Amino acid sequence: MELTHGGDGVGFALRYGRPPLDFSASLNPLGLPAGVARAAREAVDAAESYPDPLCRALRDAMSAAMGVRPEWIVCGNGAADVIHRLVLARRPARALLAAPSFAEYERALLLLGCDVAFHPLERGAGFAVDERYLARLTPGVDIAFLCQPNNPTGRAVPRDLLLAALRRAARNGTLLVVDECFVPFLDDPDAATLLPWLRDYPSLFLLGSFTKLYAIAGLRLGYGLCADAALVDALHGAGQPWGVSSVAQAAGAAALAETAYVAASRDYVRGERERLRGELSGLGIAATGEANYLFFHSDAPGLAGRLAEDGILIRDCANFRGLEAGDYRVAVRTRGENARLVAALGRALGKIS
Amino acid sequence: MELTHGGDGVGFALRYGRPPLDFSASLNPLGLPAGVARAAREAVDAAESYPDPLCRALRDAMSAAMGVRPEWIVCGNGAADVIHRLVLARRPARALLAAPSFAEYERALLLLGCDVAFHPLERGAGFAVDERYLARLTPGVDIAFLCQPNNPTGRAVPRDLLLAALRRAARNGTLLVVDECFVPFLDDPDAATLLPWLRDYPSLFLLGSFTKLYAIAGLRLGYGLCADAALVDALHGAGQPWGVSSVAQAAGAAALAETAYVAASRDYVRGERERLRGELSGLGIAATGEANYLFFHSDAPGLAGRLAEDGILIRDCANFRGLEAGDYRVAVRTRGENARLVAALGRALGKIS
Repeated sequence: MELTHGGDGVGFALRYGRPPLDFSASLNPLGLPAGVARAAREAVDAAESYPDPLCRALRDAMSAAMGVRPEWIVCGNGAADVIHRLVLARRPARALLAAPSFAEYERALLLLGCDVAFHPLERGAGFAVDERYLARLTPGVDIAFLCQPNNPTGRAVPRDLLLAALRRAARNGTLLVVDECFVPFLDDPDAATLLPWLRDYPSLFLLGSFTKLYAIAGLRLGYGLCADAALVDALHGAGQPWGVSSVAQAAGAAALAETAYVAASRDYVRGERERLRGELSGLGIAATGEANYLFFHSDAPGLAGRLAEDGILIRDCANFRGLEAGDYRVAVRTRGENARLVAALGRALGKIS
Repeated sequence: MELTHGGDGVGFALRYGRPPLDFSASLNPLGLPAGVARAAREAVDAAESYPDPLCRALRDAMSAAMGVRPEWIVCGNGAADVIHRLVLARRPARALLAAPSFAEYERALLLLGCDVAFHPLERGAGFAVDERYLARLTPGVDIAFLCQPNNPTGRAVPRDLLLAALRRAARNGTLLVVDECFVPFLDDPDAATLLPWLRDYPSLFLLGSFTKLYAIAGLRLGYGLCADAALVDALHGAGQPWGVSSVAQAAGAAALAETAYVAASRDYVRGERERLRGELSGLGIAATGEANYLFFHSDAPGLAGRLAEDGILIRDCANFRGLEAGDYRVAVRTRGENARLVAALGRALGKIS
């Protein structure tokens, strides 16, 4: 299988003889919180039992933390698992995707033979989702995915536009899936999330992730939220019963207590993102992005390969539908790591040009 | 979602106010080996990175341990994940299942709209798979599942019969899936496994599990083996990329070194299984089974409920296709735990009769 996504540190190590400094996966730069790691390690000792197929304790804790009813919550083996379950439970005939966007929506839809239409985001407009999108939400669309902020291009969708899309989707019988996995890294998450509209729109399905916010990509934990409880129940049945490991369930429950860590992470990401953006600008690179990753284009040939020789892995975005060679995404990591990236980029660009 | 399987300790605890002594899930009674637990705990600290989608290190280790080429191995988030991926990758139109058998084959096939035919196993024959099965393997069957030994009834399929089925399936273009998850608990696993025939039969797909043998049900790790490397590759693509957590991959690699533990487990299970069988016989219960679980029928009404009041969870098999009220499966646990089961059964039967 061809690996579609970033984050393949193992492949890098096999090729370059050492693990990379990985800017290709966009995780919380402050790393795994100690309380979450402790809960996960303790859960290993309880791993002799099957995990709870319904994640009852975790969903109860999420319900309390998020103000959402437990029967509106489905947990998955990462948000990607939720995407695949949703497509299997819903079996849409026609889907609308923005392009470029996270590739797993398209993969999941095509696996089940869905007819997928694409709404191209324009490079000249910074790949923003704008009013033109609404006209694509026609009654024949069974499901539409939007990524908020968009991955890999980093722009947040204005909430008024999302709400207009939501109303239109509801009228048309379209399930609108908004992937909010990176919302917690925006400067003002409350201004971006559609969570307050969940109750009023059973045709809204929100995707979220513990993976990125708590840096537990290796443990796998994502979730979906929807006020259509029958659909949520169908997702539990759309795949194997024991999708979420005991370790992930315990880590997730512990993570919900880490509110100070989340706030500190957001502050840290904002500061380092803007510092990194400024330093990239000093290298002649104009980077966009409002969350914990930046997107840019460089015509310097072989840039990712040059950086790899320096031990740094960035996300070459050439395989995204709607993007091209020279498009890259880099995570916002710690100050020192970002400085290493900037230095390596400087060397690479000097050598290339 | 209705829970189809055993092992719902959480549901038990919600209903009876305490976690059960769980005989409904059939795991290694010796528990999680220390070396595997250590590897899993250590892996938590590396969980900030995405897991390797291709499980390269684990598959290399399995290749060396099993004498199977890495490209014939696919790992999954438990064997159940492999079952669902296989059905999605193959999209069979017609399937043949034995009944009763493990319910997840049917669930996975029906989720994707497959037409499923059943070969009934006869109670009078101890639910043995016999020669009559071969006549059901007609050219129109795209995929056939057999469970070796059968779950929940515990009888092993004679290898000569399996080989006859394999030849017939190969001639007819049928993929024969043999679920060997409980083979390591048979007295003579080498006499039961089809592993030596893998190379010669690309239409043979073997299912295996780390979950049961190493008591890591909560971590989730299963695998499939098939000499059709293109099919194995298709399974990697038939679902999300990061199905197997870093913790499960590390635990699996460590588990392969536990050869003494596996041998000791087999000896222990054999001794305790036969002791338990004898004690059940003393209660008038005739139990069958050759692995780490026993199957029996009792007409005493409400037996599972009586045991539950005593803190013991057994598998009520009434919801298996081809079984009926009064059919039960119990795991072989430790000597002391099995004694508790026998004592509780004695009390329950005394109260009921």
